[in-house]
Amino acid sequence: MRPRSIAIVGASAKPGSTGSRVLANLQRFDFAGDIHLVSRKGGEIDGRESVTSLTDLPPDIDLAILAIPGAGIGDAVAGCVERGIGAAVVYSSGFAEMGAEGRIEQDRIAKIARDGGLALLGPNCIGLTNFIDGTPLSFGVQRPAEIAAPAVAILGQSGGMVGNIRLSCAARELPVSYTISTGNEAVLSINDFVEFAAANDATRVIAVFAEQLRDPQRFLALAKAVRQSGKQIVLIHPGESEGAQEAAASHTGSLVTDHAVMRTLVTEAGVILVETLDEMGDVIELLLRSAALPKAGPAIVTESGAFKGLAADMCARLKLDLPILEGATGQKLAALLPDFAHVSNPLDITAQGLQQPDLSGQAAAALLADRNVGSVLMALMPGTQEFGLKVAEAVLPHIRGSEKPVVYTMLGDSSAIAPEIASLLHEAGIALFRSPDRALRALARLHEAGRYSPVTDRRNDAVKIALPDTSGVLPEYLGKALLASAGFTVPAGRLATSAKDAVAAAAEIGRPVAMKAQASALSHKSDIGAVALGLEKPEDIAATFEAQVQRVAALPSKIALDGILVEAMQPRDHELIVSARRDDDWGPILMVGLGGIWIEVLKDVAMLGADSDREAVLAALRGLKGYALLKGARGQPPADLDAIADTVARLGVLIRANPRIKEIEINPLSASGPGEGAVVLDALVTLA
Amino acid sequence: MRPRSIAIVGASAKPGSTGSRVLANLQRFDFAGDIHLVSRKGGEIDGRESVTSLTDLPPDIDLAILAIPGAGIGDAVAGCVERGIGAAVVYSSGFAEMGAEGRIEQDRIAKIARDGGLALLGPNCIGLTNFIDGTPLSFGVQRPAEIAAPAVAILGQSGGMVGNIRLSCAARELPVSYTISTGNEAVLSINDFVEFAAANDATRVIAVFAEQLRDPQRFLALAKAVRQSGKQIVLIHPGESEGAQEAAASHTGSLVTDHAVMRTLVTEAGVILVETLDEMGDVIELLLRSAALPKAGPAIVTESGAFKGLAADMCARLKLDLPILEGATGQKLAALLPDFAHVSNPLDITAQGLQQPDLSGQAAAALLADRNVGSVLMALMPGTQEFGLKVAEAVLPHIRGSEKPVVYTMLGDSSAIAPEIASLLHEAGIALFRSPDRALRALARLHEAGRYSPVTDRRNDAVKIALPDTSGVLPEYLGKALLASAGFTVPAGRLATSAKDAVAAAAEIGRPVAMKAQASALSHKSDIGAVALGLEKPEDIAATFEAQVQRVAALPSKIALDGILVEAMQPRDHELIVSARRDDDWGPILMVGLGGIWIEVLKDVAMLGADSDREAVLAALRGLKGYALLKGARGQPPADLDAIADTVARLGVLIRANPRIKEIEINPLSASGPGEGAVVLDALVTLA
Repeated sequence: MRPRSIAIVGASAKPGSTGSRVLANLQRFDFAGDIHLVSRKGGEIDGRESVTSLTDLPPDIDLAILAIPGAGIGDAVAGCVERGIGAAVVYSSGFAEMGAEGRIEQDRIAKIARDGGLALLGPNCIGLTNFIDGTPLSFGVQRPAEIAAPAVAILGQSGGMVGNIRLSCAARELPVSYTISTGNEAVLSINDFVEFAAANDATRVIAVFAEQLRDPQRFLALAKAVRQSGKQIVLIHPGESEGAQEAAASHTGSLVTDHAVMRTLVTEAGVILVETLDEMGDVIELLLRSAALPKAGPAIVTESGAFKGLAADMCARLKLDLPILEGATGQKLAALLPDFAHVSNPLDITAQGLQQPDLSGQAAAALLADRNVGSVLMALMPGTQEFGLKVAEAVLPHIRGSEKPVVYTMLGDSSAIAPEIASLLHEAGIALFRSPDRALRALARLHEAGRYSPVTDRRNDAVKIALPDTSGVLPEYLGKALLASAGFTVPAGRLATSAKDAVAAAAEIGRPVAMKAQASALSHKSDIGAVALGLEKPEDIAATFEAQVQRVAALPSKIALDGILVEAMQPRDHELIVSARRDDDWGPILMVGLGGIWIEVLKDVAMLGADSDREAVLAALRGLKGYALLKGARGQPPADLDAIADTVARLGVLIRANPRIKEIEINPLSASGPGEGAVVLDALVTLA
Repeated sequence: MRPRSIAIVGASAKPGSTGSRVLANLQRFDFAGDIHLVSRKGGEIDGRESVTSLTDLPPDIDLAILAIPGAGIGDAVAGCVERGIGAAVVYSSGFAEMGAEGRIEQDRIAKIARDGGLALLGPNCIGLTNFIDGTPLSFGVQRPAEIAAPAVAILGQSGGMVGNIRLSCAARELPVSYTISTGNEAVLSINDFVEFAAANDATRVIAVFAEQLRDPQRFLALAKAVRQSGKQIVLIHPGESEGAQEAAASHTGSLVTDHAVMRTLVTEAGVILVETLDEMGDVIELLLRSAALPKAGPAIVTESGAFKGLAADMCARLKLDLPILEGATGQKLAALLPDFAHVSNPLDITAQGLQQPDLSGQAAAALLADRNVGSVLMALMPGTQEFGLKVAEAVLPHIRGSEKPVVYTMLGDSSAIAPEIASLLHEAGIALFRSPDRALRALARLHEAGRYSPVTDRRNDAVKIALPDTSGVLPEYLGKALLASAGFTVPAGRLATSAKDAVAAAAEIGRPVAMKAQASALSHKSDIGAVALGLEKPEDIAATFEAQVQRVAALPSKIALDGILVEAMQPRDHELIVSARRDDDWGPILMVGLGGIWIEVLKDVAMLGADSDREAVLAALRGLKGYALLKGARGQPPADLDAIADTVARLGVLIRANPRIKEIEINPLSASGPGEGAVVLDALVTLA
């Protein structure tokens, strides 16, 4: 990121060539270090001598820019390693994004670089520019800029998207510290640059455009650290749709990630996930222009009664709760506004604002002083250019220096306004938006982020348990034994190995009982009639034992039966499906949902990180469409929510502490009324 | 709208006064008709003589502008009527929007106007401007403009919002034919102006900002006619949230409308309903710059592989299906693009576009020629200002004159681009957007509107049936008899008046039977044990009769029992709730949903207009969350969808043809497998 000496391999005097554009950038930035040129022809380029081979370069070169076609990259990288060069930038495409063959060549080059300790950026990228230290390593046209803190670092696999976000920031007069395009990420990935940018004092926001996050668990750890340090990562990650997944594969050779898992875990790590380019720019602007994230809901000031209604609808759609104002604020506002004005949130100051240009500012100040208010959005009519400027000048003293985010919005879409207004507001650290829709959407993201509370590190709670040596799916009775040893509630029961034993077991446990044939290869017990419920009479229990043994014996696939599980019958009030699984990329993840149609038809499930505690699970349960049933809708008794939440959280502890556990699915978990607990009725445990 | 002579009541020489601003507007437009002034002081104003009273005005004045305080409006309106003036504009506020007292005064004035044949605009409005005929009747600053067709008329209760939409159109170089603010709508309402604007040849789009649509059924009829004539109404209607409803009441005295009913019916009438101001401007622009609505799905061309993924995700979220390209198009594109490009939709033309500025245009032309493609969105990198202009110039010949909508999008948010690009595109009738997010959202609305097909007028199908003379809720057996007479399937059954009669009825019908006590006052039969199912034995039937009679007799409220309904038992496969009701404002509306949790917890219902046919109902059923169950999810048999749809559609026919029917709720409707029909198990019919 801060090389003192650079070699351009593929230097060229030819205007428009990659090599000449790289050199032009370095000269435009008055690069202070040494520049060495390597060109096939040799000779003088732009007043600098060039050598014809990497081997002719002097020692102690920090970084090489390989501005040559893809076919020569392998040799050039090997040459860099040989010369002890520390880093290289590769622009050429034609590697993993082209398919299997390209991926093999890319992997080969990556191995050379890794083995040789070469930090390689690319291939298939447009490089990076370090605006803080004045180092452009890109072939796109770059211009130096004064960087005032706080700034944004823009990272992404796609150079085009990094460029777009940079243009958006430039138009908003937002300082950019670094732009980094990582392309196919053969060696260096977004993670490396997130780590670097986070350490830079001037950088407060890290904007990431990712088609794939390589080593997602490292990204999550970095994200948590960034968030803890008071900085923000804003992420946009296409790939939710199938079309987007195909696009990413052919663009930067990215592999499909589970988008729902990604969304769950990055959000829990404190990342602000946005969906569109508009949102990306808008959220960056609000973050850079706000002293802190809002800690209470937003208030809205407008001089349009009609906009008040639009804003209320929009907030409802965005699930942005408009707080009720404190009594004292109501009194202050009533004193400020005409008699016929209604004091409410959103607040309509009425056309009185036309007579009193600073009225909206006074109202905003009153709202900012309210403890229930965490941010203020102002939505003002643009008026004439002169009047609009007059209003901005009158309002500014009232809102300048607010600790709470303030967004100044002038309606009228892209109609002309006095150009001074933007600079005036920007100098005072206030964002100017023309679209109240966009402003509200971005503000909603800030409020969401403001509600974030880091999950406590619960590593100390982790309980390591003894696991069987076998791998694969455990039969239910072993899975339940494992869960029981980890503190889960399972029905009283035991494995019976004969009809007589089953009758004895039922007597020990108490009748009626359930009986289920047990074998690890037997995954769909009820389909073959190997599950019986509510057995009361000893003769029925004995007969059921024999019947189940025969049914399993009659199966075409020879299944070795461990025995028949005899269990106490359980009340079945609320049935849930709860699972923990280890995603290959993202690590452990939890899922909880109501059984039946809720999961099968409505896909009504909540996902959570494996370090979620009871409170986090309770919050996730509240987000389920079927939550009303758990609270006792339709005349049903309410469920023991705490017991459900504890079960889910305990699964997280279990899978985190025991790396051999690949998956645990509890289906169903039966929850009775408050205080009555939740019982594991069936469980599928898969070990590595 | 086209007065030949105007009187300004409240004329004033005082700069900034309402009267002087109105006069200045008329002068700025070189108003061709006569202008008469009425002022308290009399004398000369701006070189024109004024009179001191309405009674001193000459005869034959078409329109009076009442630029006076609210207290004087009543007398002035009476004066206008007396002088035989045809129309008046009232700006003053302080009427219905202030509460009950103001509403009374407003109603009084409205009565004077109506009785006197005076077309009154307002009160609490900023008037209107007719740009076509050069007539400004507003106190806001208005400037004349050349109006090229097609233009947009902008209507709304709120003058501020009308002004905002106008500014947005001006910034987009879109011609505006009329701006009309209707305020409290004491006499003239949005409907009157929709009707007027629709008759204007230059006006193709009517933009409406409504807090309340007065006489909604007239609006629906107008909307259908507008749509049939090939024009479009774009409507924004706050009021979905409670906050917005409160805001509307205090703003223009609007009353709460059922937002879901409004949404259903205006959409069915062919109105394009939008949610935000951004969308309003964006949709107007796409409509005015497109020759016709798209009849097939969109194609997207970009030179950014990363944007391709974003666009695919966005389309999935917007439920905008990207069509598969024809084989011939694939071949054309493969010939155009570099070998490593993937031919798909979205289409990434790759960085080759940098070498070949017209490549995206050639690709767009190939896509536009594809029969599967209904519109094309281009999303291009902005590049340098010069290069961006070069690209636009190179692309334009390929997309100019397209019958299918084309949107030209330049990424990079609000970064500077060559100003010529917009005019260049606009002259060719092509919309330029900077935000691909907004462009896609607006395009999605056009595609939705393009799929609209008018519901056939089914008035001839209407079946008038004989209704009982009683009003209020009918007991179930009468409600079912009524439905049976209208062609609905009800279970075989009849009213029994004694235990013996009940046994006889069961024998006629065939056992087992259901028995339900019948009285119009008995709305919750099952709660008091007056419903019994599956009765087989004659003695049980007799006993049940006596038991139900006794239970009803034991109720504290004396209920006169009509008898006990004895009915054949029915299979209960799929249970639905189907209803038709007559909304006070909007007229008849249908609703259908699955019973149980689907309606009680998930509010999973579809609403439809009462003239929906089978196809429309089937489409609505497909939109239900629980649709999978009707198709046979979770091992259930599929339902007779046609029978369900016919039942819903028949309810519509019935309520439309019989104005005395206030509501019919069928709960449940039991549907068996395909071809097996749907039976009304219980019904609540309410008559006026």
